[in-house]
Amino acid sequence: METFFSFLEKRVDDCSSLLCVGLDPHIPDLKEPTAASALEFCLRLVKAAAPYAAAFKPNAAFFEVFGAEGWTVLKQVILAIRAESERLGSHIPVILDAKRGDIASTAEAYANSAFGYLGADCITLNPYLGKDSIEPFIQDQEKGVFLLCKTSNPGSSDLQDLIVEKKDNGKTNTAPSPFLFLYEYIAGLAQGWNTRNNIGLVVGATYPETLARVRAAAPDLWFLSPGVGIQGGDLGSALKAGLRRDGKGMLINVSRLIARVDDPRRAAAELRDSILEIQGSLTGKR
Amino acid sequence: METFFSFLEKRVDDCSSLLCVGLDPHIPDLKEPTAASALEFCLRLVKAAAPYAAAFKPNAAFFEVFGAEGWTVLKQVILAIRAESERLGSHIPVILDAKRGDIASTAEAYANSAFGYLGADCITLNPYLGKDSIEPFIQDQEKGVFLLCKTSNPGSSDLQDLIVEKKDNGKTNTAPSPFLFLYEYIAGLAQGWNTRNNIGLVVGATYPETLARVRAAAPDLWFLSPGVGIQGGDLGSALKAGLRRDGKGMLINVSRLIARVDDPRRAAAELRDSILEIQGSLTGKR
Repeated sequence: METFFSFLEKRVDDCSSLLCVGLDPHIPDLKEPTAASALEFCLRLVKAAAPYAAAFKPNAAFFEVFGAEGWTVLKQVILAIRAESERLGSHIPVILDAKRGDIASTAEAYANSAFGYLGADCITLNPYLGKDSIEPFIQDQEKGVFLLCKTSNPGSSDLQDLIVEKKDNGKTNTAPSPFLFLYEYIAGLAQGWNTRNNIGLVVGATYPETLARVRAAAPDLWFLSPGVGIQGGDLGSALKAGLRRDGKGMLINVSRLIARVDDPRRAAAELRDSILEIQGSLTGKR
Repeated sequence: METFFSFLEKRVDDCSSLLCVGLDPHIPDLKEPTAASALEFCLRLVKAAAPYAAAFKPNAAFFEVFGAEGWTVLKQVILAIRAESERLGSHIPVILDAKRGDIASTAEAYANSAFGYLGADCITLNPYLGKDSIEPFIQDQEKGVFLLCKTSNPGSSDLQDLIVEKKDNGKTNTAPSPFLFLYEYIAGLAQGWNTRNNIGLVVGATYPETLARVRAAAPDLWFLSPGVGIQGGDLGSALKAGLRRDGKGMLINVSRLIARVDDPRRAAAELRDSILEIQGSLTGKR
């Protein structure tokens, strides 16, 4: 039976790539501060990077800032990714980076917006409201979610690094270490919730130690990992800490490293190859 | 110096009301599943409830589901609230219920979308990414945020009710009780972060005991409290547990109780009066 992650793994095999290409049309990176420029920015990246992209990840914020026009552009960008998929004969999943999270009846409307109106395959969600806020997004196993677990920003420590225990539980600790961080607890929950093979985790690539802890708590899940490059994460350490035993299970998200160079196709190809090389040396396939 | 909450308190005084009117154009409540019907639905409520509304709270999800058209309608609804404010000679704040939360550079784009493009006064945010994800929204003290603290849905217990401690801290407990819930910890953080008088908390009205714990952790903050009525929260218990010592500090959010009746103006007036009566009896003003 097909699921979101079986589609993703098919694509990963087709392009031998764990690269996720972020589409973040920051206004300072555009020719003009207009929705039309945002479209042009994204289409250039989609065309250049498609052969090497395991997935594309447009971030809703950079489209919303243009209001109604931005939403039209976001939909056009997703259609352009579909067209590239057709051309390549391989479906490239679209992960809408929207970090939504609301009570169930509202979550349903967000799910219809992301999967119905926009036609995305997957969405990033904030898990703070609990399982029932996620349910409307995972009903259809062909659609997927990545739950925020440990983000790559400095402020992520404010809450995500809290040490937690459950009330009425007696034993504090279900992790292999003497304490359990909030982000680890969420990883364990997600591992348990993933009965349809369509739940993954957002885990920043900036902290390899953290990646290793999350991998221990969620041995089967796919990670979406931003933070390599501009934010300072080291590719080798990140892959070593985060890859699953099968050498997969991790999408390395890159935006500015590809968007801000003269030849984005070459940058994408080189990144794909760097990942492949490290992946190979770690899993002994090469 | 004017701040978001000084504007809100002015409005609360002008209309003697703690009522926040939620604008949630759920498709099943509309004549037709179209953006035009969503607009009609909202304008009816805005016109009817404006004299009794301390604030209006449109939920972004129910507009996003209509894509670009929905965003146009959301902007029109906010403009209609501005027009009612003009007519009444009293500024009615607009709280965009969007529950956003992203790293700082992205959060900036969301802030520009909510406050710039849409012209809202305030936004609900998910605090899971920490202080730096909130900063872009609170730079301008005339704009405000309500951080999710304890939500009204059943799944809220999955994470929000975890017991937390801080690593490297020695003492686990800064609350008056023998343990500290995650939602209480967030309340304490928000109380400390509120240096510009523009941070409040979302605390469901469904659990009075919870409201009391949050009030103890954040004695000065405004709460936005959904959950009275359809979701089962009792108005009297909620106000008793959540009001500040000055008899303010709480917006009671109501959507369906007003939207689904034949005479929404009367429903809003009656709710305003019920709140006022309870508020009076609690603070001894009446």
